[in-house]
Amino acid sequence: MRLSRYFMPVLKEDPKEAQIVSHRLMLRAGMIKQQTAGIYSWLPLGHRVLRRIEQIVHEEQARAGHIAMLMPTLQPADLWRESGRYDDYGEEMLRIKDRHKRDLLYGPTNEEMVTDIFRSHVNSYKDLPLTLYHVQWKFRDEIRPRFGVMRGREFLMKDGYNFDLTKEDALHAYNRHLVSYLRTYERMGLQAIPMRADGGPIGGDYTHEFLVLAETGESEVFYDSEITDLKFGGRHIDYDNVAECQAVLEEFTSRYARTDETHDEALFNQVPQERRRQARGIEVGQIFYFGTKYSEPMGATVVGPDGNRVPVHMGSHGIGVSRLLGAIIEASHDDKGIIWPEGVTPFHVGIVNLKQGDASTDGACEALYAELKAQGLDPLYDDRDERAGAKFATMDLIGLPWRITVGPRGLAANKVELTSRRTGESVELSPQEAVVRLQEIYRPVAEAAK
Amino acid sequence: MRLSRYFMPVLKEDPKEAQIVSHRLMLRAGMIKQQTAGIYSWLPLGHRVLRRIEQIVHEEQARAGHIAMLMPTLQPADLWRESGRYDDYGEEMLRIKDRHKRDLLYGPTNEEMVTDIFRSHVNSYKDLPLTLYHVQWKFRDEIRPRFGVMRGREFLMKDGYNFDLTKEDALHAYNRHLVSYLRTYERMGLQAIPMRADGGPIGGDYTHEFLVLAETGESEVFYDSEITDLKFGGRHIDYDNVAECQAVLEEFTSRYARTDETHDEALFNQVPQERRRQARGIEVGQIFYFGTKYSEPMGATVVGPDGNRVPVHMGSHGIGVSRLLGAIIEASHDDKGIIWPEGVTPFHVGIVNLKQGDASTDGACEALYAELKAQGLDPLYDDRDERAGAKFATMDLIGLPWRITVGPRGLAANKVELTSRRTGESVELSPQEAVVRLQEIYRPVAEAAK
Repeated sequence: MRLSRYFMPVLKEDPKEAQIVSHRLMLRAGMIKQQTAGIYSWLPLGHRVLRRIEQIVHEEQARAGHIAMLMPTLQPADLWRESGRYDDYGEEMLRIKDRHKRDLLYGPTNEEMVTDIFRSHVNSYKDLPLTLYHVQWKFRDEIRPRFGVMRGREFLMKDGYNFDLTKEDALHAYNRHLVSYLRTYERMGLQAIPMRADGGPIGGDYTHEFLVLAETGESEVFYDSEITDLKFGGRHIDYDNVAECQAVLEEFTSRYARTDETHDEALFNQVPQERRRQARGIEVGQIFYFGTKYSEPMGATVVGPDGNRVPVHMGSHGIGVSRLLGAIIEASHDDKGIIWPEGVTPFHVGIVNLKQGDASTDGACEALYAELKAQGLDPLYDDRDERAGAKFATMDLIGLPWRITVGPRGLAANKVELTSRRTGESVELSPQEAVVRLQEIYRPVAEAAK
Repeated sequence: MRLSRYFMPVLKEDPKEAQIVSHRLMLRAGMIKQQTAGIYSWLPLGHRVLRRIEQIVHEEQARAGHIAMLMPTLQPADLWRESGRYDDYGEEMLRIKDRHKRDLLYGPTNEEMVTDIFRSHVNSYKDLPLTLYHVQWKFRDEIRPRFGVMRGREFLMKDGYNFDLTKEDALHAYNRHLVSYLRTYERMGLQAIPMRADGGPIGGDYTHEFLVLAETGESEVFYDSEITDLKFGGRHIDYDNVAECQAVLEEFTSRYARTDETHDEALFNQVPQERRRQARGIEVGQIFYFGTKYSEPMGATVVGPDGNRVPVHMGSHGIGVSRLLGAIIEASHDDKGIIWPEGVTPFHVGIVNLKQGDASTDGACEALYAELKAQGLDPLYDDRDERAGAKFATMDLIGLPWRITVGPRGLAANKVELTSRRTGESVELSPQEAVVRLQEIYRPVAEAAK
């Protein structure tokens, strides 16, 4: 993309309404615009990151054997009356009447609807196990929406639902989700720690939240510091293998890690004092096993091997897709702006032309731009007629992890500068070498998608 | 995908509620499920086609230089009060009150919101031309939703908006959209004819609808038969070139082609009688130039070259993404089921194992499945323990354009059968040859994406 043809309205001033750094930086970098309280437009730069995050979620769901579909944003109220949650849900549910005065609602979650789909079409245990998921916009009418996309009213969520014959099978689905979520978050450059949590309005005894440590987190968390040494890494997992998934769950959940909702001071005190940590965290996902809570009242049953009908065991599993942009920025920024992890960056590299209009630098930038694209990379070329300082400040603000600086002095020696946004370190390379280096840098990102 | 692990609930009986073939086939193939009047879930097979269509739309928008973003589904009513359309829009607009009794609405279109974004951030003619677009769910509270996704209430639309300094520039944007739409529809295997149309509630003097000819179309259309000989084909267009885009517009719109809204009998009668055609069509897109209709009341102005502020010239341009599934099926089916064009098919090829459980056929199918995936193709392997007839009927119903049949007799001679869904013709090939043939078949689809 050429910046002269892009729409990236960066702000020079800090917006007053932003109380936390991710909200401030998203507004300043021209990623979002608030349309009304808690409802945002995703401007082009923000939309790019949203799509990258969504793509990683889809890839990892497919890898785990989960099936993509899409449920609508609006739901008939009757489904929620069946489960008994229509009245329970309170004012956070946005209730709507259509022109025929029928009750609709903007879905805050989809347990009822997916259970309805299941009961309409699945009849036999032979069609199990089954996990359906979608990535769709949700609405929760928060009384005080704030912190930008971190606590918006209209938000994008991945929510998946497993249907299994037995509790044992459903717990394997639970473990499978835990494994796939660890891999998902790591691809986004995040460490998200599974913590014992509370069921809330979804219900269920087995539930873990995934928390990213950040000073601005809304949850207070307590954990054994050993847990932050754990990495999922590049390990290969067979998602059908019950023992393998169980082992990962045990590895990542056997140490103390709880939110304030389930915190147990006595248990926590059994952790050696030097490893006890109290911090704040941002919730970026949650997994639940809730058995037959929805399948029983809604009649989602299958004929089992013995010929008898039994309600299916279910769980639901969510990733806060739009919220993740805020969480990633909270976890990865400095005083100049955002620092995108390579896995989710809106552009792979920025090209800064130090002397726009100069035939030699223009030519070198165009050649670099074309070659990077030919190699499957996505460059943002700042081809505006601006001072170098302004171009650097913009690149730092929007947080592309790599920058190539092209100036007449370097070019005289066939050199450009490749700079890391994270460390600030620069190396001088020929343009050809810079392209090769970037290909090497992004190879693991492409490999992780396979 | 292995069918044994997929969720594709095909129906044996014709559903009673379906009045037109696309609705009937989408229900029978397990592509959609109605949740309430005019609101559908996209089951996995339907979701795959929806995503392929959306992907083609994104690729062609990017090619034309248009910038992707995403506006929310819910909008504040105040924006629509500014343009004067809040009261005009009637009961098709779904009006909502949130918990604080603020007026929201589920966006049926986005002229107001995108104009608000523009006026908040763009100040100078130097930032023009600009075309922003998004692909987002819309809602129109139709009094009688029907025909499945063809006239649903919640529907997915691509809508794009151009902002230009002059009428001349805006008409180039109009032409650019016409060109890119021709290419978009052809990639989906559709012939969509631009026809002079009526502005309706969007407004504007310049507007063309794109219509796909089909007996079940809701519009009556009148055209010169020469128009159906026109193909956009693989031609390369420079979207910045005003004359090139204008020439395409003239080529595709100079012959008589109108919907009943703008039909002019006297003009039509000037077409030689043997070329006059009257038929029915499905609208799959529309482009508008409407000048300063929104920019004036909403104050979307830029400073021009002479230092004076002027309202920008705008247009809007829509593609009915979810409706396209219905339109493609209406245009491409037979009495056995759907026939997907290669560009949008949910899977590239079906593999039918004639003797599931036989070591030789199972092994050959597994090897084919793995090899097709390794070559970047997306096979659906029917690995169920079902009769051959049932497997063929399912493949015909869901309409994958190619099928490979693997049986013990053929395998003895190292042969499998490759069958075209469209023609029914089969050829015997070695498994290796079948993979190569499918790569050749799908190469143009991959090339068109570049």
